[in-house]
Amino acid sequence: MVPIRLAITPGEPAGIGPDLVVLLAQHAWDAQLVVFADPEVMRQRASQLRLPLNLVDYVEGNTQVLPAQSVYIKPIQTDVPVVAGQLNSDNGHYVVETLRQACQANMEGNFDAVVTGPVHKGTINKAGISFSGHTEYFAHQSGTIDVVMLLATKGLNVALATTHIPLEFVSRAITKERLHKVIHIIHTDLKLKFGIKQPHIFVCGLNPHAGEDGHIGTEEITTIKPALDALREEGLNITGPLPADTIFQPKYLEDADVVLAMYHDQGLPVLKYKGFGASVNITLGLPFIRTSVDHGTATDLAATGNIDVGSFKLAIEKAIELAGHQK
Amino acid sequence: MVPIRLAITPGEPAGIGPDLVVLLAQHAWDAQLVVFADPEVMRQRASQLRLPLNLVDYVEGNTQVLPAQSVYIKPIQTDVPVVAGQLNSDNGHYVVETLRQACQANMEGNFDAVVTGPVHKGTINKAGISFSGHTEYFAHQSGTIDVVMLLATKGLNVALATTHIPLEFVSRAITKERLHKVIHIIHTDLKLKFGIKQPHIFVCGLNPHAGEDGHIGTEEITTIKPALDALREEGLNITGPLPADTIFQPKYLEDADVVLAMYHDQGLPVLKYKGFGASVNITLGLPFIRTSVDHGTATDLAATGNIDVGSFKLAIEKAIELAGHQK
Repeated sequence: MVPIRLAITPGEPAGIGPDLVVLLAQHAWDAQLVVFADPEVMRQRASQLRLPLNLVDYVEGNTQVLPAQSVYIKPIQTDVPVVAGQLNSDNGHYVVETLRQACQANMEGNFDAVVTGPVHKGTINKAGISFSGHTEYFAHQSGTIDVVMLLATKGLNVALATTHIPLEFVSRAITKERLHKVIHIIHTDLKLKFGIKQPHIFVCGLNPHAGEDGHIGTEEITTIKPALDALREEGLNITGPLPADTIFQPKYLEDADVVLAMYHDQGLPVLKYKGFGASVNITLGLPFIRTSVDHGTATDLAATGNIDVGSFKLAIEKAIELAGHQK
Repeated sequence: MVPIRLAITPGEPAGIGPDLVVLLAQHAWDAQLVVFADPEVMRQRASQLRLPLNLVDYVEGNTQVLPAQSVYIKPIQTDVPVVAGQLNSDNGHYVVETLRQACQANMEGNFDAVVTGPVHKGTINKAGISFSGHTEYFAHQSGTIDVVMLLATKGLNVALATTHIPLEFVSRAITKERLHKVIHIIHTDLKLKFGIKQPHIFVCGLNPHAGEDGHIGTEEITTIKPALDALREEGLNITGPLPADTIFQPKYLEDADVVLAMYHDQGLPVLKYKGFGASVNITLGLPFIRTSVDHGTATDLAATGNIDVGSFKLAIEKAIELAGHQK
């Protein structure tokens, strides 16, 4: 049987991404982990952490799963030597090249998913590359127009109708068209990638108490309810809009395959609280599976060994789980 | 020793307020619970629930604490008979009169706190009384200009800089002046009512990632940081602004006496999730202690006995706890 094969990008080489890969390579995985990175960076970081790391060149078509302390490597050279903890925009092109190759390999169908470590947007931009994030990069590379950010932790999936925009613009960003697109992407990917036959989507209102029948805002009446009704007529299984401060109760969560929050801080505080720091970012709408850590590069902790692998571990586990539904 | 004395208003008589009082009167409290209500309503509800209830007329100056199944009553007559489950605006004046008398008794210093059950705003308004909520009513009655809503559950207090306004108006409602007032009220009441000598207040940003240095909104830079810096110069102990999706982590919560959220759905989903339905609403800034249930009248459950007393129980316990700091 062909094993599940993951393209792993450690991200910013001066941050904790390489550390996370070294630490997680210490045990055996029931999948092929192929690291898209400079072998020298990985070896150096393993040595700084005083951990063994056996790098095996990835050869296309190879189906062997490696033992503990070994990972496959797809070698990509940095432009200048990496110093752990010191961001250097001279390696900005290198970081983007790891993403490009990982994306390409997934597009060609040789891989089952890509798992990304943290990048530093500022350093990439400083290198003269316009880069607003992994998600946008992969969307552009794969010719995808609309993607949806979903954060997952054990027992809870939260998707976002809007993501990294100022709060004051959220109301006008919530349109019937946006909700139609976002919910269709969620519905499709929960079926295809999560293996859920008839996904049940719970939707938050935009305003406190979901507007309280128009007393606290009208977007529920003018926009959200009509959009959800139209989707229900198409046969989608949707509950809401419900107040955000009651939707995250066990009686609802038991039935919810996903909760769709209207904006970032409506949905993610609960998810991160529940996940206790271990949550994973999943991009829906892409033509391949992509999971990611939910944290930054933490350059001050690079090469210290004093880091929490929780989110990256979950990102790999989730990628394997989702890829399994498509095997 | 004079015991702690609470004014209890069951609120809407056709809702579950009377049921909650009957259920919670079944055990003895280390305080005097004085119910501001129609004795007939209370007796009828106890009979429907098949529970004993001994009503003792409250006489000023009495210091006896009652045994289980007994509560003091301050009799106030309804205008028309109450049918459990059937809202009737003819009793709208009655509901407001119970609040007026409970407020008055607290203003006069005969009571240590008021604990309110759920009211139905629509029914009161239908009675021709302009009423937008308990909090506003008590503020007006006591000549208080600014109050702050705080929700509490075991291990977490969340205060709100804005409450029941449409999301699109939140950004412009967050001003330096508003933050100055709100945080001073929190600081003062945590000292006076909560007995915390130097309260440590954690403050959320307004935008995702607290604006990420201005990349996702500028209110943190133009408004929130300057307001917090000015308060720190006055000697207040304030941390923030921090992203709402990281502030609710144990490493921060251990040190936080309160988390100040900028708006309703930024702070309350986590609190309600953590509290698992048992949270209590506390009004800061009033000249007396006021706690309240965090839920509605649930008229369909009145007289069924099938209700959760968690929030009302916590409201009474919290009122006793806070009153104890002032004894």
